[in-house]
Amino acid sequence: MVAPIVRVAPNAAMRATSLLRAVQYTHPPSCPCHSNPGYHQAQPSSLLSHIKDRHSHSRWPYATPVAAEQKEYAFEMAASSIRFGPGVTKEVGMDFKNLGATRVCVVTDPTIDKLDAMRQVREGLTREGISFEVFTNVKIEPKDHSIKEAIEWVRPYRPDAFLAVGGGSVMDTAKLMNLYNAYPDADFLDFVNAPLGKGRPIDKPLLPLIAVPTTAGTGSETTGTAIFDLVSKRAKTGVAHRNLKPTLGICDPINTRTMPAAVKASSGLDVLCHSLESYTAIPYTERTPRPTNPINRPAYQGANPISDVFSLHALRQTVKYLPRAVRDPDDFEAQSEMLLASTLAGVGFGNAGVHLCHGMSYPISGQNPGYKHAGYEVPHPLIPHGVSVAVSAPAVFRFTAPSNPDRHLAAAEAFGVDISNVKRESAGEVLGEALARFLADLGDQPAGLRDLGFAAGDVDALVEGTIPQHRVIKLAPGLETTELEREREQLRMLFEDAMAH
Amino acid sequence: MVAPIVRVAPNAAMRATSLLRAVQYTHPPSCPCHSNPGYHQAQPSSLLSHIKDRHSHSRWPYATPVAAEQKEYAFEMAASSIRFGPGVTKEVGMDFKNLGATRVCVVTDPTIDKLDAMRQVREGLTREGISFEVFTNVKIEPKDHSIKEAIEWVRPYRPDAFLAVGGGSVMDTAKLMNLYNAYPDADFLDFVNAPLGKGRPIDKPLLPLIAVPTTAGTGSETTGTAIFDLVSKRAKTGVAHRNLKPTLGICDPINTRTMPAAVKASSGLDVLCHSLESYTAIPYTERTPRPTNPINRPAYQGANPISDVFSLHALRQTVKYLPRAVRDPDDFEAQSEMLLASTLAGVGFGNAGVHLCHGMSYPISGQNPGYKHAGYEVPHPLIPHGVSVAVSAPAVFRFTAPSNPDRHLAAAEAFGVDISNVKRESAGEVLGEALARFLADLGDQPAGLRDLGFAAGDVDALVEGTIPQHRVIKLAPGLETTELEREREQLRMLFEDAMAH
Repeated sequence: MVAPIVRVAPNAAMRATSLLRAVQYTHPPSCPCHSNPGYHQAQPSSLLSHIKDRHSHSRWPYATPVAAEQKEYAFEMAASSIRFGPGVTKEVGMDFKNLGATRVCVVTDPTIDKLDAMRQVREGLTREGISFEVFTNVKIEPKDHSIKEAIEWVRPYRPDAFLAVGGGSVMDTAKLMNLYNAYPDADFLDFVNAPLGKGRPIDKPLLPLIAVPTTAGTGSETTGTAIFDLVSKRAKTGVAHRNLKPTLGICDPINTRTMPAAVKASSGLDVLCHSLESYTAIPYTERTPRPTNPINRPAYQGANPISDVFSLHALRQTVKYLPRAVRDPDDFEAQSEMLLASTLAGVGFGNAGVHLCHGMSYPISGQNPGYKHAGYEVPHPLIPHGVSVAVSAPAVFRFTAPSNPDRHLAAAEAFGVDISNVKRESAGEVLGEALARFLADLGDQPAGLRDLGFAAGDVDALVEGTIPQHRVIKLAPGLETTELEREREQLRMLFEDAMAH
Repeated sequence: MVAPIVRVAPNAAMRATSLLRAVQYTHPPSCPCHSNPGYHQAQPSSLLSHIKDRHSHSRWPYATPVAAEQKEYAFEMAASSIRFGPGVTKEVGMDFKNLGATRVCVVTDPTIDKLDAMRQVREGLTREGISFEVFTNVKIEPKDHSIKEAIEWVRPYRPDAFLAVGGGSVMDTAKLMNLYNAYPDADFLDFVNAPLGKGRPIDKPLLPLIAVPTTAGTGSETTGTAIFDLVSKRAKTGVAHRNLKPTLGICDPINTRTMPAAVKASSGLDVLCHSLESYTAIPYTERTPRPTNPINRPAYQGANPISDVFSLHALRQTVKYLPRAVRDPDDFEAQSEMLLASTLAGVGFGNAGVHLCHGMSYPISGQNPGYKHAGYEVPHPLIPHGVSVAVSAPAVFRFTAPSNPDRHLAAAEAFGVDISNVKRESAGEVLGEALARFLADLGDQPAGLRDLGFAAGDVDALVEGTIPQHRVIKLAPGLETTELEREREQLRMLFEDAMAH
């Protein structure tokens, strides 16, 4: 705690400081390093890799900055507070009392509404004398119109806090209710991610939102992201901003026990892909444009040294515990670890982003040729989110591996592969194989798009459905999103490769 | 994102759920497991270790809960948002504008006030038209009266936000100014940690506080802790509550470049001990009492699965980068990594706690027999905080290792020790040796208390100075804090062992 007793810095340090400041402000587009397509060969997101690798010219040609072409130089880490423990749901009434809340809008879906988690919530709120109303009408995989209904429902209630109890659909709906309740005059598209919406930043704090997840998958309890189907554009999109994140995520492993094995598996595959995609996303120093105001720095900012720690840890835990959690409904330890992994992966991807598995999953789910996943008791065809995400994973990481072989090897190692004699050129093959084997061992998973009923003739439509997922696929290393035709061609190849593992 | 389609849970799962709920509510003191002194032999803070190891009795004797004797069952993770990047200090004006702030109380010390960080701050605030006043009078290692002066200074200004620019002393002073400014009628001891103060929880949000660290050591930019000397009690104490944590920590590695090598070393040793102590602190499931209201769950809650990730990562990075940062003033990568490690260790210990190195360091610094650390240009004797913390580390971890050999071996491995053939009984010796070697290699470090001028006759006073550091030493595994005489004896042994590595 002794503060620095500062002496005059040595000359070399002074010069370096000036150089660094110069780099911050003057990053001219004419710098030849910027056109080097092999940049991704470097370890992404090692601190200062950008500056160190490319800008330690001994004499820097100071030029006028051109903001639009500057790459990012900073990252920001924000996450909800997380409380974790078996039985901790019962504390939620006290939390709202501590927050000074008196009128709580509780958001859930009709299924969760009948479960023990909601009983704990009702008892907890009642015990503390907090008045509340329950919106039970959240739709699974919500569409813009179901979100709008929920928003209309909440406005006249005038709550002073929100509580979401459920999976990703519930938490995301609650986030959007909280957002549009705070901006009564906003147009629905104002805050929706560009280019589908206007991507307006959330420039004021929202009401407190506590999220109680009942699945171990989305990690939405820690993120500032809310996803829905924008029906008119046939696209999954959403709102993403740090101010959207819950105040507190209450992770109670007792609440995830009732998931059937199939739901445990597909939620867990979502965690797997959150961690893998965020760990392999482009480094934050490669993202453009550099924001001119920190409020515009996106949450999906690319891999960075903090998200890396979360993502790799969550990946390892998922590989270790997901098979156990799926196999044995009594393995409470594995289920608890999966809830924690889901939350930690949420912190990781919530501050780095996801890319191709998620980007491609939206048309896969949306253009379902009629597949109905085993273990889901629904009357209509359904490709669960986690399944639609993981089905393309072997192909995706074969594609992204050349951009950063070391990271893909580290991921393969997390699957238990001995990588000591694997060549860097084989990183994609090795990780793809490890993933395919993991999916096969988990059981009941499609071994590619063909198993879902897709055929070669569907590829073009899948490609066209992926292109609007700009927010996520722009973080895919190796994908040439600046040239539409080239991007189409790459995506076509990816979907073809994903037909069978 | 598919929410669970819930089926009736299998019977075994149902029974397990009931059992778990029962455990939550009924944790009778008569359970024979609770008197097992060998509990610490288990891996601490593996999820549910408490329940799994001790409470999976097939027939649980349901009894009336006795709240006072219940151990903790949950943990909570909270951290400031962190923004990291070289040059990012210049964004701070926009941050305050985005927050809607108009009158900012800037807190710094006379030395930092002359540095580039403060120039960036003044320019940034001015550019955005935000009015501010600068309190430049923070004292290094502040005492209660210097804190009170700072509080008196700020009250008439009526700021709507705070900005701290400096090391731990500055950030901690700013936190306390923010706290007591929000509670004008509070007595100074109200919020101070019990037993010295009343340990009142902070039950409302404070004004936004942005912290810009200029040392890579305290991690105070992410924690809800503020430390000062309580002169009348001759003790270091402080206030610790999640609501005290900054809104945002702005970590700009350019601001830590001017630290002299000696300051880099001692700040870095603080990081080393933050990570080692939090990683080896008692597991949260061993802490008593279980809080009856979540607002009373301390930030220093014991090791937990999230703090572990931060602490071990920060330890590895410190071992890797601190020697480089100290050796070479131009090694900007190493210095940047140390700033990041400092922040990540802050998240770790800020949510787990520290223990003996810190508890013992307060009397070591306070009872300095006249040692003046090389490289600190001050006119009076000074044992820098990091030095006073690290000097006892080899002895401390020899003492704590039997409580959890696996963790101590993992820590030794982080120092590069090949632990594959090390017996668990030797964990303490091996880690102690690794630490002693690390300190010796770093250079200019005392090889024990004797090098600071302490002699055998000083031990009793050092012990008496440690005992009031209850908040931290109660997290030391193996220390018998419930029996004062036994605790004294153990501490005496520890100080004697710390005389020479």
